[in-house]
Amino acid sequence: MIAVDANGADRGPAAVAAGVARSGVEALVFGPREALAECGPRAEIVHAPTLIGGDEEPALAVRSRPEASIVQAAEAVAEGRCEALVSAGATGAVLAAALLRIKRLRGVHRPALAVVLPTLERPTLLLDAGANVEVRPEHLVQFAYLGACFMQACMGVERPRVGLLSVGEERAKGTPDVLEAHRRLAERAEAGERTFEFHGNVEGFDLPRATVDVVVTDGFTGNVALKVMESTSAELGRAIRQQLARGVLPRVGGLLVRAPLRRLRERIDPERIGGAILLGLRKPVIVAHGSFGPVGIASAIRLARRAVDEQMVERTAAALAAAGVLRSGVGGSVAQQR
Amino acid sequence: MIAVDANGADRGPAAVAAGVARSGVEALVFGPREALAECGPRAEIVHAPTLIGGDEEPALAVRSRPEASIVQAAEAVAEGRCEALVSAGATGAVLAAALLRIKRLRGVHRPALAVVLPTLERPTLLLDAGANVEVRPEHLVQFAYLGACFMQACMGVERPRVGLLSVGEERAKGTPDVLEAHRRLAERAEAGERTFEFHGNVEGFDLPRATVDVVVTDGFTGNVALKVMESTSAELGRAIRQQLARGVLPRVGGLLVRAPLRRLRERIDPERIGGAILLGLRKPVIVAHGSFGPVGIASAIRLARRAVDEQMVERTAAALAAAGVLRSGVGGSVAQQR
Repeated sequence: MIAVDANGADRGPAAVAAGVARSGVEALVFGPREALAECGPRAEIVHAPTLIGGDEEPALAVRSRPEASIVQAAEAVAEGRCEALVSAGATGAVLAAALLRIKRLRGVHRPALAVVLPTLERPTLLLDAGANVEVRPEHLVQFAYLGACFMQACMGVERPRVGLLSVGEERAKGTPDVLEAHRRLAERAEAGERTFEFHGNVEGFDLPRATVDVVVTDGFTGNVALKVMESTSAELGRAIRQQLARGVLPRVGGLLVRAPLRRLRERIDPERIGGAILLGLRKPVIVAHGSFGPVGIASAIRLARRAVDEQMVERTAAALAAAGVLRSGVGGSVAQQR
Repeated sequence: MIAVDANGADRGPAAVAAGVARSGVEALVFGPREALAECGPRAEIVHAPTLIGGDEEPALAVRSRPEASIVQAAEAVAEGRCEALVSAGATGAVLAAALLRIKRLRGVHRPALAVVLPTLERPTLLLDAGANVEVRPEHLVQFAYLGACFMQACMGVERPRVGLLSVGEERAKGTPDVLEAHRRLAERAEAGERTFEFHGNVEGFDLPRATVDVVVTDGFTGNVALKVMESTSAELGRAIRQQLARGVLPRVGGLLVRAPLRRLRERIDPERIGGAILLGLRKPVIVAHGSFGPVGIASAIRLARRAVDEQMVERTAAALAAAGVLRSGVGGSVAQQR
């Protein structure tokens, strides 16, 4: 059973309810009961009208408002009533509720927000996309495992290629923290790392090109890069439509190319993926984009279901432990943890 | 007279020579004499066949090879024989030669690499685009002045709007260094800053949207953002052409929309701008893109000419001094400097 927080989506709780119904997945839905009539036969409803908004201080709001839908939904996952969490609410609130209730995986420094990039070729995962504006090398190393295990479990990539985002391909390019993370990842690769293949540094150029399966970076750079990519696509699309609207011949041409352009747009449609994933927690947590309609919400719920069924969290824990990259004070290998 | 380093461009010194001729600007051209026959009537040639490549350690190469064309060209500027430097060679080598020979403006912490973004609306300057992978708040504050004075002098923007790149618009969003830079810039704005208007934080979304005239960031984030933007445009353009090539009707449509798409491409053509600008040095330095042909090289040379004629460097020095944001140990105001 997937816990779904129905509050906070731009199109309101009813759009989330429609997404629940569309997903066909068993769900426990938290939100204002009167808006959740159309959740479908496989959903149970918990009346939880209280919303934590994007303009509130998330940790404070989560602590002081246990009745909020996102807190109740996270609680249901923490208690084992549900197996994963999906919300289209404010990212900060979801992150705070997940951290405080569901909690980090043992030995994980920081959960990361991962996003499947709208690339044209195969999917590329970018993390961190904004959960941690400052990171240390050991965080970046863990992100490589978090991202690789997601791509294995949920996207069927057997041995993901992991790239470290920097300002040049050469291993000497980057900030001191990036150089140190590169050194550690290269060391692990030489030691015969099985979870992923370390590709070395990648550049901004590589994000839309799907050079690797996972791009690891800090949450500041990742957030900026993601937004630049989204906005460049949107602005270019807008400019093309404007140009096509001028003159008669281009307009006729525009009609004729409309179908191929639509196909292209569908290929890069974020609703197909289901949103961002919070990795490094004890249960799968999906942050659907606030703008998603029922299609996107259904994708998010199915993604959560897949993460549970494919044991994403268990695989991640095992990979981190086997690699000996857990936070110090926590067993450094599977053997030690037993 | 503009010093032009003809070595290092992808299309070879002859393409640079053609750009010199096309510019119509007086130039002193450094490169292999045999390839520079077509520099036009307003150019003098200095035979300097030695190239510093992109794979060399720049500072070391500049120090040990004074005969290299980029070093001789920078020297000509340092000695006052030329007023500005243009090169299509490796950015690192140009930066090293400029730092070692032309030198920083008095009181400037770090020169920054600035790039006019290929936005569709009015031009937006991004800096730092890669000269400094790590920066402190005082560097970011200086970048605001460097960028604003360039936009004033070379792009005719009377009072540029400056944004600080972060992960959210709210002033509490960002790394500690970004928050501190925000605080200082806001303080200057409240004190009646005349050189620019501080817009506050901008996000990755804003880069292609021309929300502000100048976007200030560290060289790591700026480099990644610029490359993501370039690559997203290129990949999307490629995908559109692929889609249009399928089927007969779309192909006919494709023919009809070819002209408007070409007009669009021309509007975002980086060769129109002339390349990246190294700001914070004692003379204007332009790094033309390695891929530029004669059109781009000519734009770069004209941009250098404009920076000289419009006294970009002198305006920058005056603005930094008036604002009291010079490196400590250097006079903090114009009055003190006299």
